[in-house]
Amino acid sequence: MSVTGPAGFRAAGVAAGIKASGDRDLALVVNDGPGQAAAGVFTTNKVKAAPVLWSRQVLQERRLRAVVLNSGGANACTGPEGFQDTHATAEKVAEVLGTGAIEVAVCSTGLIGERLPMDAVRSGVDAAARALDGSEQAATDAAHAVLTTDTKAKQATGQGEGWSIGGFVKGAGMLAPNLATMLSVLTTDAVIDGENLDKALRAATRVTFDRLDVDGGTSTNDTVLVLASGASGVEPSLAEFTALLTSVSQDLVRQLQADAEGATKAIDITVRGAASEADAVHIGRIIAEDNLVKTALFGSDPNWGRIAMALGRAEAEIDVDKLEIATNGVTLFAGGTKARDRAEADLSGRDIEIVVDLHLGEHEATILTTDLSHGYVEENSAYSS
Amino acid sequence: MSVTGPAGFRAAGVAAGIKASGDRDLALVVNDGPGQAAAGVFTTNKVKAAPVLWSRQVLQERRLRAVVLNSGGANACTGPEGFQDTHATAEKVAEVLGTGAIEVAVCSTGLIGERLPMDAVRSGVDAAARALDGSEQAATDAAHAVLTTDTKAKQATGQGEGWSIGGFVKGAGMLAPNLATMLSVLTTDAVIDGENLDKALRAATRVTFDRLDVDGGTSTNDTVLVLASGASGVEPSLAEFTALLTSVSQDLVRQLQADAEGATKAIDITVRGAASEADAVHIGRIIAEDNLVKTALFGSDPNWGRIAMALGRAEAEIDVDKLEIATNGVTLFAGGTKARDRAEADLSGRDIEIVVDLHLGEHEATILTTDLSHGYVEENSAYSS
Repeated sequence: MSVTGPAGFRAAGVAAGIKASGDRDLALVVNDGPGQAAAGVFTTNKVKAAPVLWSRQVLQERRLRAVVLNSGGANACTGPEGFQDTHATAEKVAEVLGTGAIEVAVCSTGLIGERLPMDAVRSGVDAAARALDGSEQAATDAAHAVLTTDTKAKQATGQGEGWSIGGFVKGAGMLAPNLATMLSVLTTDAVIDGENLDKALRAATRVTFDRLDVDGGTSTNDTVLVLASGASGVEPSLAEFTALLTSVSQDLVRQLQADAEGATKAIDITVRGAASEADAVHIGRIIAEDNLVKTALFGSDPNWGRIAMALGRAEAEIDVDKLEIATNGVTLFAGGTKARDRAEADLSGRDIEIVVDLHLGEHEATILTTDLSHGYVEENSAYSS
Repeated sequence: MSVTGPAGFRAAGVAAGIKASGDRDLALVVNDGPGQAAAGVFTTNKVKAAPVLWSRQVLQERRLRAVVLNSGGANACTGPEGFQDTHATAEKVAEVLGTGAIEVAVCSTGLIGERLPMDAVRSGVDAAARALDGSEQAATDAAHAVLTTDTKAKQATGQGEGWSIGGFVKGAGMLAPNLATMLSVLTTDAVIDGENLDKALRAATRVTFDRLDVDGGTSTNDTVLVLASGASGVEPSLAEFTALLTSVSQDLVRQLQADAEGATKAIDITVRGAASEADAVHIGRIIAEDNLVKTALFGSDPNWGRIAMALGRAEAEIDVDKLEIATNGVTLFAGGTKARDRAEADLSGRDIEIVVDLHLGEHEATILTTDLSHGYVEENSAYSS
């Protein structure tokens, strides 16, 4: 059911003619209330797309009536005219819904540097408004309309006691997506105010979207939004709400990892025994982004020397003599030297688990990544995206 | 002539049986004086190979009689036993040359995590000592003996007035080599003391080896050594010496860039108008290491949106409205939006020049890199190295 699962939401996904392919390319998610609390987190990239600048601004009110999303163009690096296009899109949605533009967030994904075809966007908004519906199909149509190089729609739901969370996502990461954009819209019918919604969203994304790192790239458009209708009439505790939001977010992140461009492996890198959680995340990311590690794993090679090389670049405390490196349960490096022959670690399957134990403290983190394959090179060299 | 070009040096490269292939795998470079000043710069990786730990230690004296180098094994992550192997190698060289181990630097390259076959190393040192010779062939043999996945030996020379500099290199970078190791030995017959040699080497490597970034990896073994015999009797000014050392180093770096694994493009990224040189270097590296930029360039695609995305991740001052991005002389992005159609920039040739002008200051730097190709993925996934 994804975004229409929670009571109080309708959605639509239509083919507006933004994409040359004629595929669905414009989605609308509407919160019919009674509540309209909302929160958002956005890319840390210094080059921010027009829709990010707009949505960040309107989210200061922590209220949203609707989100409009398009694929087929990122509307990034498009100057003041691009910002006006985003504003005009929000105005158009506000008009058809009888609300103000300040209650409409905008998300875009696709090629950087090109203006959007605004006639298509406007007529697409009209078509989407007519198609708005609380059905499962409508949510799936919306989830499809935001895809770019994704091979499938990615949706998830979570059930509380008398309330629920739903959401969809496209792309491949929060701080390190593999293509132009990672966009996610989450909905809930729980009763929760904007401030708590913001707290819950930051807590959830910090340990889910923020820990997926496919190729170190951070998009100009990354956005995660959550909208709360309060239609269930149930007010969960903040802890309870945050836990379910984290669980639904993680479900979506696993789907991003599985569908990342060219990926043949789903790799979990756990760094434990770190002096701080920040060290653990940093070291995990350094390993996840290392092309020599990623190509070795594409070749199913437990080449722990490359993992040691990669983590040695980290700006974090490391003691080589305490360090342990294991792949798929086999400890290959310990006590400053080789522990077991790497032939003992079988990495031929799709799922690979790397555990690095620094033995320096109590903190740990897991970064999810993928391998670097011929498919990745092919997709990203043969097509502009 | 490379390392034997300057007066006072002999070299050798032999097949010691360290590599299973039977190729040359052990090199010796000897300084017959009269001077023995030396300097070295080493990897910044926190995981340092045994030969790096050893050579850094002996270089504190700023004197070297000889350098022994092996391919076929990095002797990294090999614990105290690995360090003893390096020490024993230096002792063996000292014995055959009638000097002390403290005057012998050691460099190793190859797979991380395996001990060296010390019997082969020892008999190889004997064979190399017998083959020592001041000829051009001897220098070329030495340059060949350190290669791993390199496809050719890389040597350079530079001529001062009555003095000269020679050198060889293997691998692909100083702070970001593409494989296990970048090693370089430079020689000179100029009269120069250890302190000035050290200053000149740091100045030269900072703008040459340190600005090559093939894939962001920093080896456990990276080493650049320079040995001065003083045999010419000529004492150039420090500025003159530094200039020639920089020029010879840059020649070697260009050869590394050309021979990087799987590279189909030689890419120069110039960042100008930066608030500081450090910002220019940092932004150049961020672009050079971005897989979406590298795959687009492999596909000869002037996808400047990916360059904008990559540099937006930099921890440096950036003003999108002032930013300009040009590829091969065509300005594609300026004034916050698209400047020219990217079809106008032809990137089909091997050489690609990217110029990013931040318009924020007076500083600039150029980072040399390569593309991310199927060949890179193939070499690094199909073979352990």
